[in-house]
Amino acid sequence: MPRFDTISFLTDYGTTDEFAGVVRSVIRQIAPHAAVIDISHNVPAHDVRSGSLTLARSAQYLAPGVVLAVVDPGVGTARRAVAIEVGGGSSYLVGPDNGLLAPAVSMVGGATRAVELANPEFQLPAPGPTFAGRDIFGPAAAHLCNGVDLLELGPEVDINGLTPGMIPITREEDGGLVAEVLWTDSFGNLQLNVDPAEIVAFGDRVGLRFDGRARTGVRHDTYAQIPTGEVGLVIDSYGLVSIAFDRTSAAEELGIGTGDEVILVSLDDDDAPARSGVVTPVTLKERP
Amino acid sequence: MPRFDTISFLTDYGTTDEFAGVVRSVIRQIAPHAAVIDISHNVPAHDVRSGSLTLARSAQYLAPGVVLAVVDPGVGTARRAVAIEVGGGSSYLVGPDNGLLAPAVSMVGGATRAVELANPEFQLPAPGPTFAGRDIFGPAAAHLCNGVDLLELGPEVDINGLTPGMIPITREEDGGLVAEVLWTDSFGNLQLNVDPAEIVAFGDRVGLRFDGRARTGVRHDTYAQIPTGEVGLVIDSYGLVSIAFDRTSAAEELGIGTGDEVILVSLDDDDAPARSGVVTPVTLKERP
Amino acid sequence: MPRFDTISFLTDYGTTDEFAGVVRSVIRQIAPHAAVIDISHNVPAHDVRSGSLTLARSAQYLAPGVVLAVVDPGVGTARRAVAIEVGGGSSYLVGPDNGLLAPAVSMVGGATRAVELANPEFQLPAPGPTFAGRDIFGPAAAHLCNGVDLLELGPEVDINGLTPGMIPITREEDGGLVAEVLWTDSFGNLQLNVDPAEIVAFGDRVGLRFDGRARTGVRHDTYAQIPTGEVGLVIDSYGLVSIAFDRTSAAEELGIGTGDEVILVSLDDDDAPARSGVVTPVTLKERP
Repeated sequence: MPRFDTISFLTDYGTTDEFAGVVRSVIRQIAPHAAVIDISHNVPAHDVRSGSLTLARSAQYLAPGVVLAVVDPGVGTARRAVAIEVGGGSSYLVGPDNGLLAPAVSMVGGATRAVELANPEFQLPAPGPTFAGRDIFGPAAAHLCNGVDLLELGPEVDINGLTPGMIPITREEDGGLVAEVLWTDSFGNLQLNVDPAEIVAFGDRVGLRFDGRARTGVRHDTYAQIPTGEVGLVIDSYGLVSIAFDRTSAAEELGIGTGDEVILVSLDDDDAPARSGVVTPVTLKERP
Repeated sequence: MPRFDTISFLTDYGTTDEFAGVVRSVIRQIAPHAAVIDISHNVPAHDVRSGSLTLARSAQYLAPGVVLAVVDPGVGTARRAVAIEVGGGSSYLVGPDNGLLAPAVSMVGGATRAVELANPEFQLPAPGPTFAGRDIFGPAAAHLCNGVDLLELGPEVDINGLTPGMIPITREEDGGLVAEVLWTDSFGNLQLNVDPAEIVAFGDRVGLRFDGRARTGVRHDTYAQIPTGEVGLVIDSYGLVSIAFDRTSAAEELGIGTGDEVILVSLDDDDAPARSGVVTPVTLKERP
Repeated sequence: MPRFDTISFLTDYGTTDEFAGVVRSVIRQIAPHAAVIDISHNVPAHDVRSGSLTLARSAQYLAPGVVLAVVDPGVGTARRAVAIEVGGGSSYLVGPDNGLLAPAVSMVGGATRAVELANPEFQLPAPGPTFAGRDIFGPAAAHLCNGVDLLELGPEVDINGLTPGMIPITREEDGGLVAEVLWTDSFGNLQLNVDPAEIVAFGDRVGLRFDGRARTGVRHDTYAQIPTGEVGLVIDSYGLVSIAFDRTSAAEELGIGTGDEVILVSLDDDDAPARSGVVTPVTLKERP
């Protein structure tokens, strides 16, 4: 009897090659009742961190069922293929054990059990060992939808031994908050790993230091409220602080992107506060 | 009892970020019976006109049900979120009231009622006000599929007060027909805002004036009938006149694109008709 | 009574324009029970060979039902629109008769019957003759799912008169195996038209000659086992030999791509074997 009817699907397969379509076709034949919801297939190739963050942002909105995620530069090697149970069986995440799934697992309460996908009975025979989405992960997701017991898919593994995710956390340094751009979205907005509570004491105008430059970010509720040319700070749709311009890419305007460091400072403590919209040369530290 | 089982979905979210997938996931949980048909998620960012034309071209072919369209540079501001009824309830269009929906609404006979999506009971609680597709529009589309009455979603608004679309119309000037490129498709064909009836008197060979240059367009029934190097005029699949080359991008060959002006003139009235395939320098007017 | 509930869908429509979405909408209205599985819509424009190979790679994994494939530079001309039966009715392939479908048809055992899609009763009335996916192919696929008999769609055509595919085969020349890059996937791996059995006598290290250069390819089971900077030879997920680097695009590293010639030679027979990772200038033949 079917247990789930939704598979949420994320990969770095792109949408030019047939990879995602072939996996959907394999699922269709094993679990024809299951709907596959594409989250993204355009995670940058081999970028496990980027995929893990995309999945984590999505996690709380996904339909209960199975999450199938494949960003897998180590395909075919000793890295394990796993299925992770969350909520005591309310949902499952299937993919490589390389940190891709970890942040999403945390977002939904943590793993309750996990197995290594080692039972060939629930896999396709493979002409080569390089398309695990088609041969191992997709079938596992479909069989879980069909009600196959987790432990049938392979031997249980210690959930404490699963590869953890790597989400950077902020730190205070010289009175500033050292943050990082987690994500540049397709509109060019720059999401920081900063909770609004971390900067509430800074007030509505916050000094931004990055790449040897200084700008002032001004808090606004929406993108459209940011005056032209001003650097906005908006609480984004995931509840994190993001740097944004109105109808313009902040990434292009500021020349920074995912992984770059941004230091947030209180302008009250600043001897020479930079004015909004004015670029002030400043040397904070050597760039690596 | 479900009223509709199809949601047609268009946005400028792109397919790299998880935005469209998250909206699909939200819909899946509210109206699991509804199929989501993606029309496009690659409308250029913030380009309301482009999105409105894509939707208008699609409108007569969409399955009855709910159209969910989000190109929304003013998200979170005073621009209204609306649901528009057409055909006395045969379908609904959900999106921002910024002109995006207007041409499609016209194509299917005009609005019969509309509401502002203001009832939080049919919305998701939002960490930030910037992802209305997930928090407001997607849930509204799903609830309409479920049979929720339009007036439950918020207060009725005057359909005459909805933001109109902006589709340019042709005009005659000095004996020529001043037209505009409405759309450059992915093959590089240039759709004009010209009905074939408007140029029937010009015959099979029509003078084209654009960007200070003159070419001759020759009427053909299909792209493949256009001789190599010749500028073809083909009635496209939407019944409008388009400029095309065979297996080659007209946009690249001619160096023009969406929004550019093209003047169509009768070659019979022309003292020095340009020959097909020959570029003749000509000064028609100052370029802005 | 419905006969099939899955349509596998491949085109060169791209995902920016509404083309694929409109076809899905047309199918939804004719055969609402049918699920449409997108294989790819990003086949390069007008590239029939590329589309045919994508389809052939997918063929054995597709769900039984109808395959709808449109890469159709000759749309509206004398090229026939066809539906091809395979397996005596176990599945159907619908598209232009230009070689696009042929390799996939071969992969699944060959055609058993075919018709030309000439019956307007199963087509949409078209404003112009250029969108056969919407007006002819999509409706045919949907009607086949609904159980409409193949011969109702149009007159039977001789399956021996269908346009064949053009997949290059290897040849031996001066003791080397002259191969061709069939496909550059989105990770930059270069699939050759070479069966592993063809090079087993060469051993684990195989000389590669291309574009006037020589490299040594080393056999590995997985991409991740290829040492950095080494050219790997991996049996890919379709069982063919592919040239690959670990987490790096072989296409970019070697400067070759789809359609380029690669000659594989035994290094045992080579007087001056090239060392792995070393580029040795060599003149094999004049480049065209």
